[in-house]
Amino acid sequence: MNMATGGRQADNIYDVVVIGGGPVGTNVADRARAGGLSVALVEKELVGGECQYRACVPSKALLRPVVAVADARRVEGALEAVGRPVDAAATFERRNRFVSNWHDDETAGWLKGIGARLVRGHGRLDGPRQVAVDTLDDGRLVLSARQAVAVCTGSRAAVPDLPGMAEARPWISRDATSASTVPERLAIVGGGGVGVEMSTAWQGLGASVTLLVRGQRLLPRMEPFVGEMVAQYLSEAGVDVRTGVSVIAVSRPGGTGPVTLVLDDGHELEADEVLFATGRAPLTDDIGLETVGLTPGAWLDIDETCRVRAISDGWLYAMGDVNHHALLTHQGKYQARIGGDAIAARAAGRPLDTAPWGAHAITADSYAVPQVFFCDPEATAVGLSAEQAERAGHRVRAVDVDLGQVEGALEYADGYRGRARMVVDLDRGYLLGVTFVGPGVAELLHSATVAVAGQVPVHRLWHAVPCFPSISEVWLRLLEAYRG
Amino acid sequence: MNMATGGRQADNIYDVVVIGGGPVGTNVADRARAGGLSVALVEKELVGGECQYRACVPSKALLRPVVAVADARRVEGALEAVGRPVDAAATFERRNRFVSNWHDDETAGWLKGIGARLVRGHGRLDGPRQVAVDTLDDGRLVLSARQAVAVCTGSRAAVPDLPGMAEARPWISRDATSASTVPERLAIVGGGGVGVEMSTAWQGLGASVTLLVRGQRLLPRMEPFVGEMVAQYLSEAGVDVRTGVSVIAVSRPGGTGPVTLVLDDGHELEADEVLFATGRAPLTDDIGLETVGLTPGAWLDIDETCRVRAISDGWLYAMGDVNHHALLTHQGKYQARIGGDAIAARAAGRPLDTAPWGAHAITADSYAVPQVFFCDPEATAVGLSAEQAERAGHRVRAVDVDLGQVEGALEYADGYRGRARMVVDLDRGYLLGVTFVGPGVAELLHSATVAVAGQVPVHRLWHAVPCFPSISEVWLRLLEAYRG
Repeated sequence: MNMATGGRQADNIYDVVVIGGGPVGTNVADRARAGGLSVALVEKELVGGECQYRACVPSKALLRPVVAVADARRVEGALEAVGRPVDAAATFERRNRFVSNWHDDETAGWLKGIGARLVRGHGRLDGPRQVAVDTLDDGRLVLSARQAVAVCTGSRAAVPDLPGMAEARPWISRDATSASTVPERLAIVGGGGVGVEMSTAWQGLGASVTLLVRGQRLLPRMEPFVGEMVAQYLSEAGVDVRTGVSVIAVSRPGGTGPVTLVLDDGHELEADEVLFATGRAPLTDDIGLETVGLTPGAWLDIDETCRVRAISDGWLYAMGDVNHHALLTHQGKYQARIGGDAIAARAAGRPLDTAPWGAHAITADSYAVPQVFFCDPEATAVGLSAEQAERAGHRVRAVDVDLGQVEGALEYADGYRGRARMVVDLDRGYLLGVTFVGPGVAELLHSATVAVAGQVPVHRLWHAVPCFPSISEVWLRLLEAYRG
Repeated sequence: MNMATGGRQADNIYDVVVIGGGPVGTNVADRARAGGLSVALVEKELVGGECQYRACVPSKALLRPVVAVADARRVEGALEAVGRPVDAAATFERRNRFVSNWHDDETAGWLKGIGARLVRGHGRLDGPRQVAVDTLDDGRLVLSARQAVAVCTGSRAAVPDLPGMAEARPWISRDATSASTVPERLAIVGGGGVGVEMSTAWQGLGASVTLLVRGQRLLPRMEPFVGEMVAQYLSEAGVDVRTGVSVIAVSRPGGTGPVTLVLDDGHELEADEVLFATGRAPLTDDIGLETVGLTPGAWLDIDETCRVRAISDGWLYAMGDVNHHALLTHQGKYQARIGGDAIAARAAGRPLDTAPWGAHAITADSYAVPQVFFCDPEATAVGLSAEQAERAGHRVRAVDVDLGQVEGALEYADGYRGRARMVVDLDRGYLLGVTFVGPGVAELLHSATVAVAGQVPVHRLWHAVPCFPSISEVWLRLLEAYRG
């Protein structure tokens, strides 16, 4: 094991080479360094990644003022204090502060501080344990990895190849989080997380949003009532929510002026900007996968320690979006912690704990992935939906509670509307999944995540007393509904 | 077992007689009825109790508009939308709605709906298994209990016997939650939960509040940093927080005009109203305890099934504040559920599960009592503080995290200030206590309650992934601090 404290190695040989310096790659570097390994990390854009500069962080910076004002407006006594709409200019200032005006000095400095080497450039695998980098200063560098190469390149917005797209200059998610003017009319295509969050944000900032959803429901991976409730709130906020409709062509003649969307229902829709929030594709098309026998552009299949299964001698790891387990920053960081520790343990010849829920097994990826959409209302879930649990062969019972019956929820917002579901494994007596949708439930989700990941038996949950009058008393109602 | 569905019994003999119809007594009635027992419940004031009409429910109805506005003001973009102060008149309207204008028709109707008999009057024990009631219509009724009598009379504000108190007409908690005019100057005596919550509420509603605290810190049963942070926020909101000072006399000549407080630091303080929030005393002084060999005015010592230990043949139960375990509505309801089930199981001759965390043991009272103060900032804790854990003989390690270092907290409020502590039992590897203080942490507490009551091992908590960017990522920082 090389105990070098990082920095530039004359021979460009490191224990670990990480491709991609987002939240996932930096966490892999952190754990590998904590395990005493030398690390080089290759990043072609900003250290901190899409999440920090183009996705989670700026989107929440835009959403929070909108939700804070919406929350105040839902409370008699506070409503009267809110006389004006959300200040878009101030909100953009806030967002710019959160992304450090798109400068990565702090995160790059942190990386240096842990003793990892930052190589700015485009890294590509160049045969086993080799990473060739086209550096940003037009140089070329080949890094060698004694122990492991970790691919943490993440994903990019996947945009359909429709007629007129190039000229229409559509927004993708990173545009929607970095724009500093409010389009009068904004069309958003896609009813997943990005679509609903950006609908809340931009409608709240003053745009007239039309949300176009191909399927019949929003947030289709969550329990069906979630998308229904989010659609209801969005409509009440002024968003024109249209389901069962696809865009078949776009046009913006000359690339200026309004954009026209041609819909498959025979209508056209004119807008000032259009955001395509139609899914993600892995950023693996140009990272040299072909040099190690893998398919460029594919998701990477990994084992419980984050090793790419197809590489027989186990030097290649893939954490974060690229492994397609869960396209969520926090889940990628979880994989990074565990995978990084696994790399360090293997390098030191220490035994690994790969049993379920062990220190070197990403078990939560299979059973306890949590997710919060910070739209209004907040939409949250962990584990399996009732349908997913049944499809996976579990014998389950799902119970629902109307959050409007919970005193703490009514205290939080007048006329509170929200819903909760708990999915119980009848054979094992613990929870497989929990869903909450409603204002102010974002922080409540972690109680469910602890219960699901901890496999806390239902009979023990009766002893986890929720405070009165908080929204968390929904737990009591869920337990009563399950007993009843 | 009498399977009567309740209602009036000609002979006034019931399986269970409950004295006190607050949230605790009604839950005892509910569980006893669910177990097939006949129930009479005696209440001299409003069914639903102090909590519903004079404490938790109206206080949170007053607090929420204040906190919602404070939350919005802490967010750039939302701040600009808030042009006016909280509307006190609208807030009082809101509060009145939450307490149904102090009418109990709904709760009384619910009680009837579950088949329990409501006897309106003052109930007193009258020897074993007997309860004599002076009814509100000046009648007298003697109820007999085949199985159990449950004392659920709760507590009242305890006010010091200072010179001038009678004439000064001080507020107690129920006055502070039911007032409908804002005093220009409000003095609040006592730095516990009522004192800090009412400081937040009334300062936010427009009063100039002076908070007088005898000891050196606020919320003295929580980790020391909690009271410090609450004092800091209260001061910034305009509250004059004074610690280490006692009131030795009060005067309001003729009972009108301003009230003057004489302090032990040699100063006097003039105010328009004064609230004494100086603790609680059990409502057991006039319930006939002497007729069964117990001391009137004492707290009642109970076993793990809520039976009063001093009563040898086990027919007397005491749930809620009167047993002095935890003066919290939710904990009283917990005791009510478990005690009520124990009564039903014993009546049916079914075996009881009184092992720790069993269905008939109030184990959480000893290990996992949660508490949220809905002041600004929210102050929350579950289980033991570091000091309490050490005093109880546990070998522990406590780790702290500055919530201002958590991205999700910064997204929630600009310049977020808050703090968290986790107390780990080093021998058992699970958590004994967790504390969070800061804006927006009220719903986060239940994650800690599930972890503490579930005794989820620390190594498993690493698999309970907190969502990014939510405040719950503090869990990650706590785990890292513990590992580090």
